Amino acid sequence: MRRTRNSLTPKRYSGELALVDRIRSRAGGGRGAALRLGIGDDCALLQIKPGEEIAITTDLSIAGRHFRLDWHPPETVGHRTLARGLSDLAAMGARPLAAFLSLGLPENLIGQRGRIPSWVDRFFDGFLALAADFKTPLAGGDLSGSPVAIADILLVGAVPRGKALLRSGARPGDLLYITGALGGSAAGLDHLQKNQARNFTARNRRPRDGSGSLAAHLWPQPRIPQGLWLERKGAATAAIDISDGLSTDLDHICIESRVGAEIDAVSLPVFRGASLEQALHGGEDYELLFAARPGTRIPARIGGVSVTRIGRIVKAQSGRSRIVLLTNAGPQPLPRHGWEHFA
Amino acid sequence: MRRTRNSLTPKRYSGELALVDRIRSRAGGGRGAALRLGIGDDCALLQIKPGEEIAITTDLSIAGRHFRLDWHPPETVGHRTLARGLSDLAAMGARPLAAFLSLGLPENLIGQRGRIPSWVDRFFDGFLALAADFKTPLAGGDLSGSPVAIADILLVGAVPRGKALLRSGARPGDLLYITGALGGSAAGLDHLQKNQARNFTARNRRPRDGSGSLAAHLWPQPRIPQGLWLERKGAATAAIDISDGLSTDLDHICIESRVGAEIDAVSLPVFRGASLEQALHGGEDYELLFAARPGTRIPARIGGVSVTRIGRIVKAQSGRSRIVLLTNAGPQPLPRHGWEHFA
Repeated sequence: MRRTRNSLTPKRYSGELALVDRIRSRAGGGRGAALRLGIGDDCALLQIKPGEEIAITTDLSIAGRHFRLDWHPPETVGHRTLARGLSDLAAMGARPLAAFLSLGLPENLIGQRGRIPSWVDRFFDGFLALAADFKTPLAGGDLSGSPVAIADILLVGAVPRGKALLRSGARPGDLLYITGALGGSAAGLDHLQKNQARNFTARNRRPRDGSGSLAAHLWPQPRIPQGLWLERKGAATAAIDISDGLSTDLDHICIESRVGAEIDAVSLPVFRGASLEQALHGGEDYELLFAARPGTRIPARIGGVSVTRIGRIVKAQSGRSRIVLLTNAGPQPLPRHGWEHFA
Repeated sequence: MRRTRNSLTPKRYSGELALVDRIRSRAGGGRGAALRLGIGDDCALLQIKPGEEIAITTDLSIAGRHFRLDWHPPETVGHRTLARGLSDLAAMGARPLAAFLSLGLPENLIGQRGRIPSWVDRFFDGFLALAADFKTPLAGGDLSGSPVAIADILLVGAVPRGKALLRSGARPGDLLYITGALGGSAAGLDHLQKNQARNFTARNRRPRDGSGSLAAHLWPQPRIPQGLWLERKGAATAAIDISDGLSTDLDHICIESRVGAEIDAVSLPVFRGASLEQALHGGEDYELLFAARPGTRIPARIGGVSVTRIGRIVKAQSGRSRIVLLTNAGPQPLPRHGWEHFA
């Protein structure tokens, strides 16, 4: 984490240097098992084990587009920023090694006023709590003043060579599974839109039970243990995380694997309080969708999270929708809607 | 490179999906020697050689702060974005493996109008030309609409384990060296500020000779071969790249190594047309500053770039400036000014 030089503006936010020091001390030197050198040099240095390869993912979040300063408590913005990156590692079956964070912040989000923690301090409360949960040190990043709040997260993970869960390995006959439940985050965002002013301050603590769609939206849990289980067992032929919605993310698997898919509507684990539409097209659930050969034993729970069979991979057929939803009223094509459907 | 879902705004820029396709095809599948899986899955996968460790750096650039849309041709913004990251690898003695780029762009910078390439297409002209020069594939990233143009670059490199050039190894008695010349970028920016409207279109091609302060500012050359030479020879005890200005970056070495330094003003390689002040405090020269034991043979040129001895490391003394500038008028304390001095 070093401060970005603002080459074209002479004025630096007075709080920036102090903020870097606060982050460095809170990141605890930033050393994990794999992290040989963290914040404070030109680069961070990481080690992996022999036979491993490196998995890397980035996710950009921008105020007004991926979060709203007036809807999302800063702790949840920090949590969600890191959760998005960790979820991509989970979808590859990779173990997290380190996180890098680039922050662009308006001045009023940086400064501490007396004892009241600033927006960015509360952002790091949420970020570092989740980082601790998954033993993922903050190893570096960048910081700059910006007219709009942005957070770009980069996650580095390791996976045994050739064992990563790809999108491209699904074959006709494979069965489709999903962890947890779907549609909770979309239902929670819907709730947030309708009740944006109410109970705002009550939402900045991580709920103990983790139930409720609002918690699903604000405090999503990346499925790292489940991805690692699938990788270790060699149980999945393809995997992806649900970031854009089932209809869109399953379509990614179908395209990369050159197959089609059928979903059994009645079997979908719909989040309590969410609609079928939200379960099919809502995003940001960060559950794992994966395919497995029919003979592969998949337990009903992995790492304490339910696993549900929701359909199967079929041959791609020209003139037929790539994904078909099987309902009591008969089969229906399931085009990708993604999130726009609800916005 | 995948498109970021804009979870809170229903409208997606119509050009975004097309842009991702253009980037994917221009990145050429994005596979290099180390890159096993590039753009198109949840993560990219990279391999390193046995005995290597991974070096990672990020740099955030924001319109109006690190570049100006009305001053910097888009090709140079792309070039400079990647050059900043590559320069950090050079300062560690690391060889580049892959680059990741997160872009946030206003709609008017994305769309192609007829045959006129958009801002972002020209950005990639500059970015990918430099990436080709240094055999650094674009392995992934993120893309989102944004009210302000931002580019966050992440570079991944590899370095033999324990051989990275750190800031912390300088010892009293070491001699200080700098590659190339200093102050050119600051002088070029000064020129740009005074002549912003003139010859704008003429600046979007990389100059053949690379001379002139404007070229130094717009098309800086990361010193990757020089950093690799220092790493291979084990010649440097400490190194850093000049991104914030000599006075600031040398101070980083002094702090991390717990030493002081003396600079001989008369020996400084000042860029033609730049002032001594610009050479001492100007940033973005992206030259390498390094320390070496007195007995280490350092050639006058490394990889075609001049190397100049500019001073020495001394013991840190309380009550004395950490860095002293030796001039004909006697020694002067050299506090870090960084870039603000000129802005």
